[in-house]
Amino acid sequence: MASEKRSKAIDLSHHLSDYVNSFSVSPLKGLQKKYGGRKDMVSLGGGLPSPTYFPFDAIYADISDADRFPIDPPPPTASALSWLWRLFGSDKVHSTRVAVPKAPVPGDGGLNLATAMQYGPAMGILKLQKFIRMFSERVYEPAYSDFVTLIHTGSTDGWSRVAKMLCNPGDTIITEKWTYPSAMASAGPIGVRVLPVDMDGEGMRPESLRKLLSEWDPARGKRPHVMYTVPVGQNPSGATTSWARKTAIYEICVEFDVVIAEDDPYYFMQAGQYLPKSARVADGATSSGEDVANWLHSLVPCFLKLDRQGRVIRMDTFSKVMAPGMRLGWFTCNPRFAERLERLGETSTQSPCGFSQTILMKIIDTWSFDGYVRWLRGIATQYRLRRDFFCDLLGDAFDLRVSTPTHGTWAGCLVHTAYAKRPSSARPRFSEKSADMRKPLLSFVPPSSGMFLWVRLHFAGHPAALQNGGDEPVESLEERFWTLLADSGVLTSPGWFFAADDSEPTPADEDEDEGDGHLRLSFSFANEDEQKRAVKIMAAKLQEFFLET
Amino acid sequence: MASEKRSKAIDLSHHLSDYVNSFSVSPLKGLQKKYGGRKDMVSLGGGLPSPTYFPFDAIYADISDADRFPIDPPPPTASALSWLWRLFGSDKVHSTRVAVPKAPVPGDGGLNLATAMQYGPAMGILKLQKFIRMFSERVYEPAYSDFVTLIHTGSTDGWSRVAKMLCNPGDTIITEKWTYPSAMASAGPIGVRVLPVDMDGEGMRPESLRKLLSEWDPARGKRPHVMYTVPVGQNPSGATTSWARKTAIYEICVEFDVVIAEDDPYYFMQAGQYLPKSARVADGATSSGEDVANWLHSLVPCFLKLDRQGRVIRMDTFSKVMAPGMRLGWFTCNPRFAERLERLGETSTQSPCGFSQTILMKIIDTWSFDGYVRWLRGIATQYRLRRDFFCDLLGDAFDLRVSTPTHGTWAGCLVHTAYAKRPSSARPRFSEKSADMRKPLLSFVPPSSGMFLWVRLHFAGHPAALQNGGDEPVESLEERFWTLLADSGVLTSPGWFFAADDSEPTPADEDEDEGDGHLRLSFSFANEDEQKRAVKIMAAKLQEFFLET
Repeated sequence: MASEKRSKAIDLSHHLSDYVNSFSVSPLKGLQKKYGGRKDMVSLGGGLPSPTYFPFDAIYADISDADRFPIDPPPPTASALSWLWRLFGSDKVHSTRVAVPKAPVPGDGGLNLATAMQYGPAMGILKLQKFIRMFSERVYEPAYSDFVTLIHTGSTDGWSRVAKMLCNPGDTIITEKWTYPSAMASAGPIGVRVLPVDMDGEGMRPESLRKLLSEWDPARGKRPHVMYTVPVGQNPSGATTSWARKTAIYEICVEFDVVIAEDDPYYFMQAGQYLPKSARVADGATSSGEDVANWLHSLVPCFLKLDRQGRVIRMDTFSKVMAPGMRLGWFTCNPRFAERLERLGETSTQSPCGFSQTILMKIIDTWSFDGYVRWLRGIATQYRLRRDFFCDLLGDAFDLRVSTPTHGTWAGCLVHTAYAKRPSSARPRFSEKSADMRKPLLSFVPPSSGMFLWVRLHFAGHPAALQNGGDEPVESLEERFWTLLADSGVLTSPGWFFAADDSEPTPADEDEDEGDGHLRLSFSFANEDEQKRAVKIMAAKLQEFFLET
Repeated sequence: MASEKRSKAIDLSHHLSDYVNSFSVSPLKGLQKKYGGRKDMVSLGGGLPSPTYFPFDAIYADISDADRFPIDPPPPTASALSWLWRLFGSDKVHSTRVAVPKAPVPGDGGLNLATAMQYGPAMGILKLQKFIRMFSERVYEPAYSDFVTLIHTGSTDGWSRVAKMLCNPGDTIITEKWTYPSAMASAGPIGVRVLPVDMDGEGMRPESLRKLLSEWDPARGKRPHVMYTVPVGQNPSGATTSWARKTAIYEICVEFDVVIAEDDPYYFMQAGQYLPKSARVADGATSSGEDVANWLHSLVPCFLKLDRQGRVIRMDTFSKVMAPGMRLGWFTCNPRFAERLERLGETSTQSPCGFSQTILMKIIDTWSFDGYVRWLRGIATQYRLRRDFFCDLLGDAFDLRVSTPTHGTWAGCLVHTAYAKRPSSARPRFSEKSADMRKPLLSFVPPSSGMFLWVRLHFAGHPAALQNGGDEPVESLEERFWTLLADSGVLTSPGWFFAADDSEPTPADEDEDEGDGHLRLSFSFANEDEQKRAVKIMAAKLQEFFLET
């Protein structure tokens, strides 16, 4: 989309909170800007220490090649995975040493320690500012022209600032029914209520969203004007919102004047549909080749591409594609919001760490834009391999039946339902109990993106649930099973932890039995041996749990 | 002070704000803690990326020797200073390359990239936690036993969290009459009013503080229960609070139940009294020798050493003694406050940058505790040389007269009053004007600590002030002079910028003429040639300004 054809952002400043409106711009800012450009100025004004006294003269990093991880790997075998997952500590891999000197060089864009390790603008070093602006423009193609990119110290900081910028006490924000708990932890203390919207396999349901907004009872307070959403590889459900779905949601937000906070850490982990092992052998067709633009266009576009009005605040982070400890990410949003977000940053985090900014920028300089996209594809492939490996393990541990429901939460999705594995060698000794065991134990939809598998636990078939007519609350069964797993050596995340509104009982999905529970399983961290052990324990304990009285 | 003799902190939880009380501890925290120690656990619970995918295999830093800067230098000469101030970029200095590997090693305390660059606790890596705890214990000697140290991302983040933790909207906090503007910028938006307390050459005046608290009119709202203070090398006044003064202030805070937020970035820049060039030649006696404990004991103790109740929240930062871009510092405070401050960090900054934490820890490991203290002394000496050089320049540019007032703001201080320099060679041509020019132009007390010189501008002698009976407000003359300086190539900070309460006119010091103004001059950043140029311009422009109509 040619820049000159795009319109500018509309005025959305009526959404700003009283809090953020009370931040003023330091009058010194304008003055210092006026004089800052002059080369012959002597500054006795700031409180800057001399870089002479920084106790380091240079830093270096051994950085990975951009193509360290394959993008069109052979069908995974245990040994291939072992190699891939254990690079860490290996001396077989190639790296390049990059250096960040202390002294500035004209034209280096701040990529030196004297500048980057000094007090700096909350916007970060110049060269990184330029890169993220170019990246957002080129990869996300915002539908309006005057968008601004602004660095932050990770999306937790990002969302925390957005919530403070847009919400007054008593306001309500909209989220997916299951959502990222830490995001909600920022909302509660500023007096903001979180209102869940029903989800399906593609995330938030437009018809539920429209109903909530159009039938809003003013007695409940101001109609929600902020949406928090994780549209790709959603945490915890793993759901990814399609382009058509994003369009529907965006138009509703235009109609009801809702600002969209798009928290998208898993955007580049779009892995495609899970295919069982047998179907994956001839999988070469899914590759989009080495062409960078082809791969980028194979990803579901983000909300920004629809955003003709500038009502999307997109939050990117380097945490999942580089390292969380960098504490770096950025906003893409309209200029008015960016200015206020910058003010909020000045009195809290200030600028992100200079080591992070310079090392990150050195990596990107070394790789170039194409190399960075190649790196992202390699990471996406790794998470695809991990997802496939983990789903395969579940296929080995249970009898999996695949179905496509025509309605309900998982309508249209390939739902994998797991039953206790029937020993192939012998007829079970206790036919009564075996019959019970053939009740569904868990079900899931293999995620097309991200790092999470969201598992429904069919507690409705659990003796405790049956015996007391389901009086035992779902949290209790969920917690008991969570504890059983933990006692057996497997840590997972219980479903109740992700309920958007913790002031009310966890809402049941419409097509689920009341007594069912959930677990979020992450396949991003454990290595293959650990995953094997975990799935084995999970399968055994689940059957044990379903048999206990 | 032996640890077992110290009492525990008293309960001060009634000071917590509604906001901070609304943060809950994640129920998963306890569960994960329970199981986290088990070696055989597989975690499918978190959202951690695999460190395999971090795009770096090691980082390195060329670090300074701990004794790079001398502690007992020869009397400063221009050439010695040139060498000291221009190391930056020099290849004459020695450095040591340290490495932070990616792979963890048992017992490394988290000093590896796999751990430090992962999502981590808001408390930082273990080894750094232990160091700062030991440092606070050994250097500050808190007077109570159960103090806690907690890392933050610099004292702007630190104070921002403290203000949110302790203040409800409508509350009032106490500060020095002139104070750090950025600290106030965090208070305003949360609805907190800042109330200035009179200062003198030692900072806040106890009698003014007592008066303010004891005569508090409840109609003004809740009596202030939080004090923000910069007790050493205060920003902007340069004042340093003595031990006796700290004792008096602390006891008043005990009596009126006030929590003290001690923001102390310049603590290790205690440089001693300024002596004119001639008196400095035989200055060897000021050195406390190489002994670490001797030097530490030569510093004015901080509020913590008085803090038998745990009502001090001390904020340390590495910004001034290492580099601001590290974005690292820490709180020392009572355990209840520390727990709440940690909760606030979890939903905003999370943990500080892992590169910073590991490089800092490698430096300290390389130097050892004694080496780090040696480094701090070297930095203190550098700022002493800078202060001496800058004050000497003022002595060269003006006729300085030294006096010790017996009352008023600078009672007991060595006040340096500057007059236009009388040409030694010739009798002035215009005796009328020359007589005018012998009115005081500016005055200052050379600071014993920090990086700032606080200058009073004697505008009362200014024709504009005289002609209109002082109707031109001080801000206007100040701003006009500030602009004249800036237009001439010297950036400074105007006094109004530091007035604690910007909703009221800048309060005049009791012994100052109504029309006087202030400038804060920083001698920390500009090199000696720049300082020379700046002082020359300032002297010329000041005389020009005092002569204009």
